[in-house]
Amino acid sequence: MTYCCGILVHDGLVMIADTRTNAGLDNISVFRKLHSFAVPGERAFAIASAGNLSVTQSVLSLLEEGLENPSGARETLMNAPTMFQAAQRVGRAIRHVNAQDGSALAAANLQFDVSLLLGGQIAGEPPHLYMVYAAGNFIECTTDTPYLQIGEHKYGKPVLDRAITFDMDLYDALKVGLVSVDSTMRSNLSVGMPIDVVVIRRDACAAELIHRIEPGEPYFADLRERWSAALRAAHANIPPVPYKSDARPAVRVEAREGARIT
Amino acid sequence: MTYCCGILVHDGLVMIADTRTNAGLDNISVFRKLHSFAVPGERAFAIASAGNLSVTQSVLSLLEEGLENPSGARETLMNAPTMFQAAQRVGRAIRHVNAQDGSALAAANLQFDVSLLLGGQIAGEPPHLYMVYAAGNFIECTTDTPYLQIGEHKYGKPVLDRAITFDMDLYDALKVGLVSVDSTMRSNLSVGMPIDVVVIRRDACAAELIHRIEPGEPYFADLRERWSAALRAAHANIPPVPYKSDARPAVRVEAREGARIT
Repeated sequence: MTYCCGILVHDGLVMIADTRTNAGLDNISVFRKLHSFAVPGERAFAIASAGNLSVTQSVLSLLEEGLENPSGARETLMNAPTMFQAAQRVGRAIRHVNAQDGSALAAANLQFDVSLLLGGQIAGEPPHLYMVYAAGNFIECTTDTPYLQIGEHKYGKPVLDRAITFDMDLYDALKVGLVSVDSTMRSNLSVGMPIDVVVIRRDACAAELIHRIEPGEPYFADLRERWSAALRAAHANIPPVPYKSDARPAVRVEAREGARIT
Repeated sequence: MTYCCGILVHDGLVMIADTRTNAGLDNISVFRKLHSFAVPGERAFAIASAGNLSVTQSVLSLLEEGLENPSGARETLMNAPTMFQAAQRVGRAIRHVNAQDGSALAAANLQFDVSLLLGGQIAGEPPHLYMVYAAGNFIECTTDTPYLQIGEHKYGKPVLDRAITFDMDLYDALKVGLVSVDSTMRSNLSVGMPIDVVVIRRDACAAELIHRIEPGEPYFADLRERWSAALRAAHANIPPVPYKSDARPAVRVEAREGARIT
């Protein structure tokens, strides 16, 4: 399993991904799922991937080598004129891999299973963040819900839902993203350290931060501990439960002892 | 969808369930999924159910009417000698409904989909909490992980993982359980109000609290707001992210401009 999230706030883009892959419970490895591409000052991208590793690696290699278009030119991420066209090229690369490998995978009872987050900026337009599905179609992140997730997304969603706003500080967004990853790792063993992080500041068109958080790294360990303490403490600030039993079922207990009450 | 959780602490048992059922997105209803049975002072049970409503209602009715055993006696929850045998009877009722309805459901492409939480106490033994699966087998809650969930369990699990301990106060456990339900409702529309709650205090062998939380009820609205505020505030108490870019990928940016950095 995998957990990746991308957060797009006014000041820029945060992308986070775990690195655990598994082929069964006894075949666990570390593979990078978060990749950065840049021509500093002109364009910067980060791509996070979930799904079958052979598929996601082939998609990335195609995006570097380029796919030939009808006029014979090679379309790569690096020569995409706009972020929208870059997302289209990611979708096309996925469809190309599906056309090549999909039927053989299906014959082996393997699903063609892939989803990618593409975030970044090309000079002259604002930053964008897309989620590209296995069919090659995609959606774009908006200010209403300024984040997208792929992989094991449920455990880490409640904190994003409540704490992420489009106007928040870029590194506060990274902090909340790391909390979201921590929530996921705590509950799903198949999401694991190290954690890769990329931060692309608006209009820099370059990655401001490219970092791998290794197991045992002190800041992340402290963040995990503080977050756990905050979750444990939060209910202490909620007043005691004031509920009394509802009248109707209580009456029914006395009337028909041993029967279903409610 | 459904979300139910049962929490078994030293002082007793908390059971919580939502009430939303849906047959498609446009056919939403309120049905009770949390049922209480008691002979006060002698035995008290609460059963929460998830899955196909026709199946779960049939199981409950069978447990009230009783299933005939080989010697001709009718086995109900109310005459089960122990909690373990009560859990066995829940499993047997599920298998009985599967034997009756399973093939017709399968012919209509419907899964035989049911899971139940059975919690309670019979005088003379401690309280127990079981999760019974669609195959009729079951597991028992232990002090290591003093809660069990059925239905849409992922969104509400992180707070239970961190805040529930076997030694905590019974009504603090209820509070954390309600936070867990709130987390789930916020992220999954198919889990919805009203919320049913049962609290069975250890050795009372009676439900101390049977309550339905209606939409707009002030305490629950306040709990939701305080919890959201705590989640939003928690990251403010975590120090700023200290990371600098890793040396290796930064060097590669300069060396091979436009290439994949990491």
